[in-house]
Amino acid sequence: MSAPYCTTAVPYYDWIASHGRRTPNKLAAVDLYRDRRLTYGEFDSRISRAALALKEQFGVGQGDRVAVLAPNTIDTFELQFACGRLGAILLPLNWRLTVHELAFIVGDATPKVLVCDRSYATQATELKASARVPALLELDGEANDSAYEKALAAAKGALPNVALTHADAMTIMYTSGTTGRPKGAIITYGMTFWNCVNVGGPARVSCDSVALTVAPLFHTGGLNLFANPCFHAGGTVLVMRNFDPGEALDLIADPAAGITHFWGVPAHYLFMLQHERFSTADFSRLVSAGMGGAPAPLSLLEAWAKRGVALQQGYGMTETSPTTLVIDAEQAILKIGSAGLPVLHTEVRLVTAEGRDANPGEIGEIWTRGPNVTPGYWNRPEADTSSFTDGWLHTGDAARQDEDGFYYIVDRWKDMYISGGENVYPAEVENAIYELPSVAEVAVIGIPNERLGEVGKAFIVPKPGADMTVEAVTSHCRTRLAKYKVPAEVFFIDKLPRTATGKVLKRELRTC
Amino acid sequence: MSAPYCTTAVPYYDWIASHGRRTPNKLAAVDLYRDRRLTYGEFDSRISRAALALKEQFGVGQGDRVAVLAPNTIDTFELQFACGRLGAILLPLNWRLTVHELAFIVGDATPKVLVCDRSYATQATELKASARVPALLELDGEANDSAYEKALAAAKGALPNVALTHADAMTIMYTSGTTGRPKGAIITYGMTFWNCVNVGGPARVSCDSVALTVAPLFHTGGLNLFANPCFHAGGTVLVMRNFDPGEALDLIADPAAGITHFWGVPAHYLFMLQHERFSTADFSRLVSAGMGGAPAPLSLLEAWAKRGVALQQGYGMTETSPTTLVIDAEQAILKIGSAGLPVLHTEVRLVTAEGRDANPGEIGEIWTRGPNVTPGYWNRPEADTSSFTDGWLHTGDAARQDEDGFYYIVDRWKDMYISGGENVYPAEVENAIYELPSVAEVAVIGIPNERLGEVGKAFIVPKPGADMTVEAVTSHCRTRLAKYKVPAEVFFIDKLPRTATGKVLKRELRTC
Repeated sequence: MSAPYCTTAVPYYDWIASHGRRTPNKLAAVDLYRDRRLTYGEFDSRISRAALALKEQFGVGQGDRVAVLAPNTIDTFELQFACGRLGAILLPLNWRLTVHELAFIVGDATPKVLVCDRSYATQATELKASARVPALLELDGEANDSAYEKALAAAKGALPNVALTHADAMTIMYTSGTTGRPKGAIITYGMTFWNCVNVGGPARVSCDSVALTVAPLFHTGGLNLFANPCFHAGGTVLVMRNFDPGEALDLIADPAAGITHFWGVPAHYLFMLQHERFSTADFSRLVSAGMGGAPAPLSLLEAWAKRGVALQQGYGMTETSPTTLVIDAEQAILKIGSAGLPVLHTEVRLVTAEGRDANPGEIGEIWTRGPNVTPGYWNRPEADTSSFTDGWLHTGDAARQDEDGFYYIVDRWKDMYISGGENVYPAEVENAIYELPSVAEVAVIGIPNERLGEVGKAFIVPKPGADMTVEAVTSHCRTRLAKYKVPAEVFFIDKLPRTATGKVLKRELRTC
Repeated sequence: MSAPYCTTAVPYYDWIASHGRRTPNKLAAVDLYRDRRLTYGEFDSRISRAALALKEQFGVGQGDRVAVLAPNTIDTFELQFACGRLGAILLPLNWRLTVHELAFIVGDATPKVLVCDRSYATQATELKASARVPALLELDGEANDSAYEKALAAAKGALPNVALTHADAMTIMYTSGTTGRPKGAIITYGMTFWNCVNVGGPARVSCDSVALTVAPLFHTGGLNLFANPCFHAGGTVLVMRNFDPGEALDLIADPAAGITHFWGVPAHYLFMLQHERFSTADFSRLVSAGMGGAPAPLSLLEAWAKRGVALQQGYGMTETSPTTLVIDAEQAILKIGSAGLPVLHTEVRLVTAEGRDANPGEIGEIWTRGPNVTPGYWNRPEADTSSFTDGWLHTGDAARQDEDGFYYIVDRWKDMYISGGENVYPAEVENAIYELPSVAEVAVIGIPNERLGEVGKAFIVPKPGADMTVEAVTSHCRTRLAKYKVPAEVFFIDKLPRTATGKVLKRELRTC
């Protein structure tokens, strides 16, 4: 009989079990909030006990879902890998959602158990009732006598013999959904692995890497940039419970922490930039400072570049697990503002509204295909039909390429509006407004207009103490933008509505 | 329509095309003999022209074989990747074989063209006639006016649109075959890729790596340790035409070369150790010094360890592309002589002659399974039957595991002999004899004996000027080995017969 792997899916081999054998004494995971440090040997052992606890106490088996509702903690990774030992699927829940919103997700994914931090006990109890979750298991961020720790301590017996492949579901991630109802993207072991390879190269992830994780772990960025690639490589992952820009700056500068990798959304970098210790912080050990999740203003990239840090802008989404485009550190300064080029093992196209490939400089919707792309959505076969063409995922994001092939994310494809027959991409208008020194944040949307079809409306959060006028904004825009792009309306507000991952909720602005 | 990659083979994406876009000015390949240096942009462009030349001048298309008979040169890698742009399969030929031996291989693989270095023109012409190769294309190591260079210069037109997957054949490698006729192991794109991941982790291969390649490029070690992993990561590969221990030491010490990765068989390390500049050479930039291909005497590992270099012993074979076991640099000193632990994405078992899993300390045959394992042999479906059980490849090598799970390669499973009812593994006897300071090389085989079934016979190459006696060897062995392991016969010879890759040809010793 010949080897069976030539035409079938690759087997999933347990990363942590392998590192537990190869480098049992190496530091694997650090929970900064609880000051808990686990070696690969300890992590491996706790993962086995967590899997046994899930199996024995809650009957979790192959294909079952395990939900987790918790602030950022290394327990989420423990549960992720524990699910792998049972063939179960992790369902990380967004703690910024209301119980009503969570009930929709939990009702859709029907987990067998909800693991929740004590700080979300009220929501969890309500969810258990409203979405009919069979059981709760309480974590406790404060102490070590939680039900979860007791379950691990009591776990015994043997793990089942489960053979998984790269085609099996590892996680279900409900997309943050700036429009419409959340869909549960199926994230396979293969997708997660391919991201490790695809982003690990340009970001230089190795067994010597130490990643500081601040993005929420219910977000692909939190799980996969750079935590999972670091776990795959046998490096170290530090998890911060709540992002604090001063603490992050201090950790990055601390030789004892030895942080080499950081990833954040533009807001994380903005808050660090605005911190008093930014100008003196030591960034010399950083190997890669990745950024994604939302388009970044050029001024932010330039301010970090002045401190010697080339922010590696990238592009991706939950459905691509996530990195699809990323810029090499060496290029980040030369091609400032670019999200770079496609990673090695994936394909990217720009497709115009007419369905043809965009020419250089022309804006198109990003389509992508490859082993890092989701096979589809949980319980939503009809979503596949609208999301894919011949395996190409329609991302809903707009970009253009320069003459060297570098991609520049322009905006959400759907956020584009048409003013007097001309396409306007809000991000371009926002970048122009960000040049004004009094602007802290800005978002632009298209609103209906009788004469022009649509016109732009800018929402500006001024910096504290700044004195701004509509006239100053408009006249600045006239010097930077074609007339049809200059916003017809300018509003000053205190705060932009954002998703948990920092994306501006433009649908909420439409109701302002 | 949903994404098609969930259950089918992963697409092969062209590594060099990707690096050619991302890092066109980075050094990709250096031919030391011809002092030729190619950036990724240049390498990418030459590969396209080589592919066009193969297609237009020789009609090479998808599935066709392209043979190469040349000393080590970066052209072999150019041809490897050019084949990828046509869907053709590279057939690297062993230049140490006779024309008669090569004719068997070429007749079995039926390449459409034989690319040969001018120094092998006579053999190539004979092969063309005897094995009916349709065409020859001459490379020239000395000059740039070869037929190959002219073909590249003349190449124009468009490359075909070929979609390959990880299940497609990339190379056919005829195993060096210490016993029997050579078999053509099919090496897929997937196998080659998985080796990049599997060995790239413990050997810390990255885009910053610079690998010095000295092993023959018709051997999996020459192609895959660490050249192909380095090309996959976007690093730099230096190819040496003929291994010269002094030149290798000087290159490794040269800051301008910046070599971080070296891989060799024990003989390479032995020759460097015996070189006058070994004691003063600078090894400080070496990230990984890998070794495999044959069991290494402990004295060799210890001598290198004294110079601060932890030789990373590994284990693998052509059919596993190759790395299956490897020791981490941090463990190499603590577990001296061990080939380490299984790499991440593969499985290893030790199986006894009775067909059960070996206990710790007990010797068994190495069986392995995973995405790095060959799907089988070219034109040899019956070979698959004898080589695999449920996807597990029987390697024919013997090993034992210590209490921590570390593997120690004992010998060729088939080289084991039985003396008075007891199993004897020649490598154990050889290690004992290597302790004698006058021994340069030793090989032990089993020979028939009326009373005991088999007894050991040692072939010893004494160091120059050394005065050795049979009695001294035998009495030393009696202090180190059980009586049944002490060789009954000891012969002194000038040289051991070896394969091109340094393996002792024990079948030739049997006829001594």
